[in-house]
Parts: sequence; C-alpha cells; structure tokens
Amino acid sequence: MPPMPDPAQRLVQMLDELGRVTDEPGRLTRTFLSPAMERANLLVGGWMREAGLTVREDDTGNLIGRLESPAPGAKTLLFGSHLDTVRNAGRFDGALGVLLPVVALAEAKRRGVALPFHVEVLGFSEEEAVRFAGAYIGSKAYAGRLRASDLKLRDSRNHTLREVIESHSGRRYNLPKPAHRRGELLGYVEVHIEQGPVLEAKGLAVGVVSAIASQTRGRLTFRGKAGHAGTTPMNLRRDALAGAAELVLFTESFARARPGLVATVGTIHVPGGAANVIPGEVTLSLDVRHPDDAACRAAIIGLIREAQRLARRRRLACGWQPTMRHAATPCSPVLTARLVRSVRKVQGRSLSLVSGAGHDAVIVAALTPVAMLFVRCREGLSHHPDEYASPKDLAVALRVADDFLMSLAEKIRE
Amino acid sequence: MPPMPDPAQRLVQMLDELGRVTDEPGRLTRTFLSPAMERANLLVGGWMREAGLTVREDDTGNLIGRLESPAPGAKTLLFGSHLDTVRNAGRFDGALGVLLPVVALAEAKRRGVALPFHVEVLGFSEEEAVRFAGAYIGSKAYAGRLRASDLKLRDSRNHTLREVIESHSGRRYNLPKPAHRRGELLGYVEVHIEQGPVLEAKGLAVGVVSAIASQTRGRLTFRGKAGHAGTTPMNLRRDALAGAAELVLFTESFARARPGLVATVGTIHVPGGAANVIPGEVTLSLDVRHPDDAACRAAIIGLIREAQRLARRRRLACGWQPTMRHAATPCSPVLTARLVRSVRKVQGRSLSLVSGAGHDAVIVAALTPVAMLFVRCREGLSHHPDEYASPKDLAVALRVADDFLMSLAEKIRE
Repeated sequence: MPPMPDPAQRLVQMLDELGRVTDEPGRLTRTFLSPAMERANLLVGGWMREAGLTVREDDTGNLIGRLESPAPGAKTLLFGSHLDTVRNAGRFDGALGVLLPVVALAEAKRRGVALPFHVEVLGFSEEEAVRFAGAYIGSKAYAGRLRASDLKLRDSRNHTLREVIESHSGRRYNLPKPAHRRGELLGYVEVHIEQGPVLEAKGLAVGVVSAIASQTRGRLTFRGKAGHAGTTPMNLRRDALAGAAELVLFTESFARARPGLVATVGTIHVPGGAANVIPGEVTLSLDVRHPDDAACRAAIIGLIREAQRLARRRRLACGWQPTMRHAATPCSPVLTARLVRSVRKVQGRSLSLVSGAGHDAVIVAALTPVAMLFVRCREGLSHHPDEYASPKDLAVALRVADDFLMSLAEKIRE
Repeated sequence: MPPMPDPAQRLVQMLDELGRVTDEPGRLTRTFLSPAMERANLLVGGWMREAGLTVREDDTGNLIGRLESPAPGAKTLLFGSHLDTVRNAGRFDGALGVLLPVVALAEAKRRGVALPFHVEVLGFSEEEAVRFAGAYIGSKAYAGRLRASDLKLRDSRNHTLREVIESHSGRRYNLPKPAHRRGELLGYVEVHIEQGPVLEAKGLAVGVVSAIASQTRGRLTFRGKAGHAGTTPMNLRRDALAGAAELVLFTESFARARPGLVATVGTIHVPGGAANVIPGEVTLSLDVRHPDDAACRAAIIGLIREAQRLARRRRLACGWQPTMRHAATPCSPVLTARLVRSVRKVQGRSLSLVSGAGHDAVIVAALTPVAMLFVRCREGLSHHPDEYASPKDLAVALRVADDFLMSLAEKIRE
C-alpha cells in the first residue's frame, strides 16, 4: 500500500484536533456562539491563514476565510459547511466541508497555483438547531435570509437569538444583507459526509448530489377509547395503537414501492399509557422526503388518506398536523457536471445521489448555484461519536476538490 | 316508573357520601392508611353499626364488621371488597362491595330476619397498589398471606410498609395468621362493578363471575439500527418500530381468533426517538389474560414465537422480559351456582363472565371458596371520576344479594 498522501494526513489531523474542541468534557458538542465555537473559529482561522486566506468573523459567528485572486474582474467561488455540532457528535459532519477546502487551497498554494477567481471558505456558525429551534442561522445570516422572527427565537435559558448575537458582538444587530451580489459569485460547493449507507453499499468513496430532497414533517394522531386491558373483549375495543401500527406498516410498504421516496415514523407516544390500559390515543411523527416536490406532496396525501381510511374502519378519529415543509433544492447542472467530471477522473466512475438530509447548501442556493460532494461514511452513521470517514476516502475527496478547482481555473482562463 | 326502592336509594346515598371522603380536594383519592382512609373507616363503621354489626379495625386498617348469629355452631359468610381507591377515582370500584352487603344486612334486620350463620363484611384497606407497588395489602393481611418481603416495600416518602403500619397502630407488627380457620367459613362473596363493557353490551344489570383470569405481563424489546430518516433508503433499513408494529397487529388478530383471550400492547417507547431518526430500538408492554392457565401460557408462547420470527425476517434482535404472572382463580362452583340461581330469579337470566381484572377475591380464595357478582357500569368505564352504575342496577344487585342470603339461610336451616 502506498504511504498516505500528505494533504489527506493533514486533513485527518485537523479533523481530530477540531474534534476535541467541545463545550462538554468527554464528548463533542459545539453549539451556536458557545465558548467551544469561539475556540473552533480561532483554530480553523489559524489554519486558514496558514493556507494564505484572510480571515474575518461576522456578527453571527460565521468564520469567513478569503483567498484573493490577482486576476482582474475575478469572481468568487464559495466552499463551506458548518462548524457547530449536535450533542455527542462525530467529528466529520460539517467540519469536513470547512477543513477540506482549506487543505486543498493550502496544497494549491504549495504548488504555486494562482487561481483566476477568489475563493471564500465559510465555516457557518449554526446548522444543527441545537441551541435554537430554528436551524441554519449561520448560512441564513450569510445569505441575507435571516428574518426578524428568527431573532425572537429563545434558547433554553430564555435568551433571544438577538440577545445572544448582540452580547457576542457587543453591538446592535441589524438583519444583514446578502454577503455578495449574485453576479459576483461562481457558485457554492459543499463537501459533506453522506450520513447514509448508499456509497458504502456501492463501494464508492465519493458521489455527487443531484438535489436536496423535498421534505414534509408532521404529527398524526389516532384517537380511540381507553379501556381496561383485562375486562374489554377484543371485539369491543377501539385501540388507537393498533391503528397507528397499521399506518407504520403501510408507510413502510408505500415508500418501498416508490423509488426515491423515504418515509419514516420516528416517534410514537401513548399519552397516559399503561401496560393494563388499552391505548385511547396515539401520536406519531411522519417524515417524508423525495427529490421531487410534487412526488413528496403526493406521498403525504396518500399516507394521510390511508390513515383516515383505516381510522374509519377502526372507528378511530384521526388528525394531521404538519410541522415542517421544505421544497427540494436542485443542484446547479453546470457546477454538478464539472464535479462529476472530476469524480470520474479520480475515482473511475461517479454516482448521482439525492441528499435526504438538509444542508447549508439549501440556504446558500438562494444566493448562488450550489453543488455538493458526498463522502462515504462507515455504516452510514452520523450524529454519533463513531461517525467515521476513512483517510483513503478523504484523499479521494481532496483529489476531486483539487481537480475541480484546477478545471474551473482552466475554463476561466480560456 | 315505580319509585326507587328504599334500600337502593340508601345505597346510592352512601356511595355518594363515601365518594366525597378523599385525600385530594376536588377529586377522589384514598390510599393505604391515609387520613381519608381513617375517615372512610369511621363513616362506613358507623353504617355497619346501624345495620347491627360489631365493628373493629385490624393493624393494617382493614375494617371488619361482624353480625353474630344466635344459631349454635354457626359458620361465617364473608362479604367484602376494598375501600382504597386509585388517584382520581370513581366512587363504585371497591366501595360497592363493602356498602352493598351492609345495606342488604340492614334490610334483613329491618324485616326481623335472624340468619343461621355469622356474616362478616370486610372493607379491605388496600387493593389498588397506589401507595406501595405491591397490591392486596388488606386482603393479604386478613388471609394471613402477607410476607416479610411485603413489609419492606417503600412508599414515595421512602417509608417501609412495616413503618407505616406500626406508626398507625402504635405497636410492633407481626405477620398475621389467617383471620379464620378454613372450617369456620362458608365462603366469600365480592360484589364489584364489571369495569368492562360486556354486561352493557348484553343488556343485563348483573352477571356472575366464573373465574378471575390468568394473567401474564412483560416487556418485549426489538433492536434494529438507528439511522438518518432522510439518507437511509427503505431497503437498507432495520426499523425496530416497523417490527413492533407487526407484533401489535399480530397480537390483535391472534387474540381475536381465540375466545376468552385478551392481549394488549398498552405502552410503546422508542428510546432516544426523533422525527428524523429511524427507530433503532423499541420496547412495548404485553398483557395477556385468559380464564385458563394453560391457554394463557400457550398464548404468550405463541406471541413471543411470532415476535422472534418477524425479528429474524427483519434482521432485528428481540428480547422478552416477563414482569408479572398470576394464575387463574376459579370461583367456587357451589357458591357460584347459588348466586346464579338468585340472579335468574331476580333478573330472568344470568350471564357467566370471566373477570379479566384482579380482585381481593384472588387473595381470599386461599382462605375460603369465593364467588363474585358483577354489576353493569356505564361504557365499561372505571378508574375514572365518570365511573357509574345506575340506581336501577344497584337495586337488582341488592335483590340478588338478599335472595342469596335468604336461600343460603334456608339451605342451612334444612
């Protein structure tokens, strides 16, 4: 086996070191504008400077490293992801998309490459919605999409987002404009672990995202009649849990029969439930995602219709309360085609993937076309300390990023 | 409509008055040896004395009213149920089985009847397991079935059962012998609301219990693999909740197909569950009851076998942890036949019911043969402030109890 290439080794070291910057001893947790996030920005900012970037931080704690091109009229290419984490996180989710371009740019600098475009590497301060219930604070601030209502969100200590931002920056916070005019930008590229098992199943180190899926989430409630588990004969029951169980299985087979659709019942709750009481009420969560908005809507309608049908048959009441809706984010055909060419060159073949998870790219897409590179992670595991991407796969991703930068530079110089 | 017969009216008044004796203002709660239980014993003891009974209380707070017969060599017939309640209870569960025989005996006294047997009316101090996790403290003490281990049970203030009993009685508590030798007793009769919907469905005021069901309770666990709801394709999932849902539906159809069997999944829990996470683990409770011990065991085995089968098919792990087992308590054929004759005389026809719920009769059966009379309750509702048995149905139950007493007296005088 050849020795590990230097840039990948460096990337692994950086991921390890950043993975030790935490608010909670013994496990990795970094939340919006926390002490660990300040230390993370100092650490990553130092690495950015070593790679030749100038570094600043905005009022919301976004870390912005910029490599100026000497070329006249140069536009800006964005790379980025988030530096915050879930509680008890792994060290790749988010961090990889910030550190990989830093290493790639350091490597280009080492080789004396002068790019014909500016590059910004963005370490967004918030994507995981741990401290505040609304996600994407960092990328929303950068893209000029933060709303007055967002600033009223409260954390668990009852501080508003506005208060937390102003106490951090030491000055009055005004809702920001987009960090760039659209015409100044070449696009945004986010490198991220897949957080799913598809690349592993296909035996590939990396794949290219075609779209970030449309997503609908909500709460289904079945209401029947609570009763004594010992004294109510089977034929006189109106068991809300039996109805919910039918829907869980219907959801599974419904999604299996429709390529591209994923549908999940992740929580189920019997309020006041006890072993000796027939469930009178059950609530369950439903999460439905599809690369196509219309197909996602149709799936939700199909599932709710079946819930109502089986509820009628079982003499249950049934209610649906949507809690979240995101339209699909298509990736830029042009940027994505360039990324696919680089992947084919490095890996032999490419694979097109839909991202079922949301990413900062969803928000940045309002500002500029986006593309995403997924890196294989072991067993699809994420949001867990065992989250892992191998140094070999990271090396592949680095070579793809390098090839992407060089091919874009070549195209622009033409 | 004829005016309500006097004894039933009196019984309704007593149930109402006792139903206002509570430890919690605004709702009915009486727990073992609480202040409200002391007031309840004073109130019911007074009514017992009015009916001609002598009254005492044992160290565990059991209220014991005794009507001595002048007949030489007379044996003793027991009536009884419990005077404690669940939290936010109805006023019939337990209380009916104590007050109805008091009213019946008062009525016999009014008519100048001298019974050829002694009667004891027992107001047991604890059946509902609210203050201590173990149930039946009162009837266990009376039947000489309390164990040293029971005395170590602790309430929520961390007092042991022994401490609570001794602080109430003011003296050292020794595990009691049975209150009677077996040969002294004619049997035990418990009148109780059905706590189920069968009598209502059949249009009958009362029915006779043939057996108290065998019962097994336990916890089933399915373990699969947690995963991201957006990024894990349907065909790569090992969803523990989908497995649990299959078992919920199998349990329902399995029990429906077997007369006499009731099986209930009352609780279901996804530890660490979230709307966007495929359930990696699910625990659910299983409660199975059948009048026949062997059939109950066979049902549990059948359900666990199916759980294991579906777990294998879905690549889940499956575990079973039994938490409770009660053998069936058959009712006395002789006493029950006499009760059935009285029901037929009063109501035209009788109905034989299995009690799916446990009762003090389960414990007293160790001392003497038992019989139970069930009274229709509205919508089968119990353990709820809306628990209700109509004055008309109470009148039927009173006439049955009176006929039972008179026919037993006649038989003994022969």
